[in-house]
Amino acid sequence: MQVSFTAAELLAIAQPKQTRGGTSETVRGLAALGTAGPGELTFLGNAKYRSEVAATRASVVLLPLDYDGQPQPNQLFLLVDNPSVALARFCSRLEQLLWPKPAPGIHPSASVALGATIALSATVGPLCVVEEGAVVGDRSHLQAQVFVGRGATIGQDCWLMPGVILAADCSLRNRVRLQPGVIVGSDGFGYEFVKGRHEKVPQVGSVLIEDDVEIGANSTLDRARFSRTVIGEGTKIDNLVQVAHNVVIGKHVILCAQVGISGSTTIGDYAVLGGQAGIGGHITIGAKAKIGGQAGVSFDVEPGAYLNGTPAMPYMLGQRLEVLHRKLPELFKRVDGLEKLLAQR
Amino acid sequence: MQVSFTAAELLAIAQPKQTRGGTSETVRGLAALGTAGPGELTFLGNAKYRSEVAATRASVVLLPLDYDGQPQPNQLFLLVDNPSVALARFCSRLEQLLWPKPAPGIHPSASVALGATIALSATVGPLCVVEEGAVVGDRSHLQAQVFVGRGATIGQDCWLMPGVILAADCSLRNRVRLQPGVIVGSDGFGYEFVKGRHEKVPQVGSVLIEDDVEIGANSTLDRARFSRTVIGEGTKIDNLVQVAHNVVIGKHVILCAQVGISGSTTIGDYAVLGGQAGIGGHITIGAKAKIGGQAGVSFDVEPGAYLNGTPAMPYMLGQRLEVLHRKLPELFKRVDGLEKLLAQR
Amino acid sequence: MQVSFTAAELLAIAQPKQTRGGTSETVRGLAALGTAGPGELTFLGNAKYRSEVAATRASVVLLPLDYDGQPQPNQLFLLVDNPSVALARFCSRLEQLLWPKPAPGIHPSASVALGATIALSATVGPLCVVEEGAVVGDRSHLQAQVFVGRGATIGQDCWLMPGVILAADCSLRNRVRLQPGVIVGSDGFGYEFVKGRHEKVPQVGSVLIEDDVEIGANSTLDRARFSRTVIGEGTKIDNLVQVAHNVVIGKHVILCAQVGISGSTTIGDYAVLGGQAGIGGHITIGAKAKIGGQAGVSFDVEPGAYLNGTPAMPYMLGQRLEVLHRKLPELFKRVDGLEKLLAQR
Repeated sequence: MQVSFTAAELLAIAQPKQTRGGTSETVRGLAALGTAGPGELTFLGNAKYRSEVAATRASVVLLPLDYDGQPQPNQLFLLVDNPSVALARFCSRLEQLLWPKPAPGIHPSASVALGATIALSATVGPLCVVEEGAVVGDRSHLQAQVFVGRGATIGQDCWLMPGVILAADCSLRNRVRLQPGVIVGSDGFGYEFVKGRHEKVPQVGSVLIEDDVEIGANSTLDRARFSRTVIGEGTKIDNLVQVAHNVVIGKHVILCAQVGISGSTTIGDYAVLGGQAGIGGHITIGAKAKIGGQAGVSFDVEPGAYLNGTPAMPYMLGQRLEVLHRKLPELFKRVDGLEKLLAQR
Repeated sequence: MQVSFTAAELLAIAQPKQTRGGTSETVRGLAALGTAGPGELTFLGNAKYRSEVAATRASVVLLPLDYDGQPQPNQLFLLVDNPSVALARFCSRLEQLLWPKPAPGIHPSASVALGATIALSATVGPLCVVEEGAVVGDRSHLQAQVFVGRGATIGQDCWLMPGVILAADCSLRNRVRLQPGVIVGSDGFGYEFVKGRHEKVPQVGSVLIEDDVEIGANSTLDRARFSRTVIGEGTKIDNLVQVAHNVVIGKHVILCAQVGISGSTTIGDYAVLGGQAGIGGHITIGAKAKIGGQAGVSFDVEPGAYLNGTPAMPYMLGQRLEVLHRKLPELFKRVDGLEKLLAQR
Repeated sequence: MQVSFTAAELLAIAQPKQTRGGTSETVRGLAALGTAGPGELTFLGNAKYRSEVAATRASVVLLPLDYDGQPQPNQLFLLVDNPSVALARFCSRLEQLLWPKPAPGIHPSASVALGATIALSATVGPLCVVEEGAVVGDRSHLQAQVFVGRGATIGQDCWLMPGVILAADCSLRNRVRLQPGVIVGSDGFGYEFVKGRHEKVPQVGSVLIEDDVEIGANSTLDRARFSRTVIGEGTKIDNLVQVAHNVVIGKHVILCAQVGISGSTTIGDYAVLGGQAGIGGHITIGAKAKIGGQAGVSFDVEPGAYLNGTPAMPYMLGQRLEVLHRKLPELFKRVDGLEKLLAQR
């Protein structure tokens, strides 16, 4: 990293409620408490590392307001409401410095149809393809080798990283960030079985992705059979996730890596699905439900429920059954014992 | 959707056995029974929605022959053998209108080797790469940013969507449809452990994909170590599926999303594998077998068997064991009771 | 395959300890014992196929030193320490002949920033993008449609297959092979929950991939929040694998297809993770540990342990519990019987 922040700049970024000590160092990087050295910033994001603060050699430390220790010489403590959030703001500044947005314009190697509409403030990077009738909004950035199909629309301040494919007639609202290799608008998996063959049901719907959604690398979101597959505002999707046709995902949902959601299922706002969980088709997962990693769910789930396992069951029940499952050898012995005892009498 | 169908055009597409009522509306779209309005077509695809037909505001309704209700004013009922199949035909027409095939020819931005053979009726879209010795057959369509490796062959009427990679020496027969990001012909995962290191076994075989196969977005199919990995005629593969080297998949098989099949395994005709199922290496899954979602199978499976769970077991046995598993707390209590009773006597 | 090897060439490749018989055929291909014919080479890689050697029609057979049978007329036996390793050497030669490395240089259709450094002996294929400050080392090969982000570095003799994305500031050491569609350096999945929304924590770290690593098609490796995600020397990763931010994978590790590893987890040297296994975050998997396919691990694992199942448990315990689990119907009957018996007394 070729960056540098003065103490004054850091104050402006972190906006601490209080400071302790001071440093003459400029900050050129970021590291964990245990590994940071002079010229680096660190933070206490998790109370369990509290004891490491006293020994850190970082020049600047982001700390919670209730931290009562004192800095070492030439060390600056910044006391903030939430060190992790302050760190996120610092990282955001770092990100801008490391990878500044390119100038607006269309790279000469891009293939943009005459009938596409590209905002003057948008950037279409090298070797992108934008088909007829597509719209790219203000300040949106197609980084490189991105495909935007006919009639697809992209709102403002979106970032489509290399290799993203946004197929025909699909839409992104604003501030959507698609990591590399994301595919939006592949065909849903729909066939009719006729005379010994699976005949394709063409998928003529689309995908709508609302504001502030982020989608992880190589995830796939299928277009609806007709109507729309929807990803609600503020939802965050990790890598290699599968969202089938006609799925409707609410707002501020979290889908961890490798989750799979089958067709026509609805996921409520603020639900959280752990990695590799699999959700059946045509069901409803209630708002704020939590589904554990690798769980398999094939029935409706109440709002706020916490399920685990395959087939999924309430978390506490699953834990209890797991304990008993591991006592099966003992149970078989106990029943053996009872049978012997009775045989003797 | 900017499309429009007259009643006469719909009759030609749906070929109904019988009609009831009539409408002066032209059909401009497609919606579910409950949400369709005037100017839209709908259908009864599943008997459980039968009661919704009477209230639908759609102008045209595809219905099964045994539906005995009457249409509302300005509403047309089309009675057909199978409304879902008639709908599929309608969607197929819609698809052609929405996304017509581009004109034949090679886009000037594509990079096509001199030694490649491209049919005059084929389309090679923008920023595609076609290497030496590759063959693209009649009316096949490489949409955009597709890669076709040296010596790869593509039959007639295939459609390779954006970002598809067909590696060297792999073959598609006819009417193969590869969704965006599909990779055909990545190396199989083969190593020999020699002196503390995994030494690569170069994978010099290929992949053959037979007629009418469709493969979902970002799925990966490895080339054989030598000889061929084969996907049989009419098989349909969903998104993010992994097919390892030397796998042989039969005809008309269904692989749902995120399935993984390990090396040298054979899958029989008409088998159906649920989402996220994992199949071990060097085994045989019999024809028409059904493997449940998330199941894990590491042994041969009889034709027609229906397995579930990890490790997989017959579906009915799994259901029964699951019921008993949930009764473990009760069983432990019963054994406690028996022990107490015997201790008292 | 358009290749041909004389017996003398095969001797040079296989370096046998002993030969038996001889053949006038040139070898033009490779096949399994049961299917090979004249003009083909075959091998005995697994003792269970020993009985097939006598009947094989292959012209040349790679055999272990202790094989005592005699060749047929016009058939050459090559006796070697390890037939599979000899075969790998043969396949390596085949691979070079089938798909020779292209000449060095930058394809005119590639988009290479002025500030990128490309070794004279490197190859940058058609429609690749190389951003500012990136470095491509000696003899490395970007095949086609590859993306190399700003400041990314590639060592010597690497091979990035079509569609690979190496994002900004990530590094490959030497002899790294990335299969098609691999994504290195997508953002880690990190958010802070603030006022009802998931606020992004920008991910400003990178990914380091050490010598001789190979990564399978469409796998995704996230950059660190800060510092680095690391893949150790000689590690081999199969297709569709997810490696989250700040994961540190040791040397010579095997990750089978569709494995998922959550953030900040460490995997020890020589560990082997079966297909679709899921590993939780912030844990340590010890060196040489084996994790079964589809297993779910959310706790630290001792070096050398062999775990299976979800939640994971020692392999032998899991096998035993599975046997008892299937005896639950019998156990319930036995307890029924005991209760009846006691009621009668």
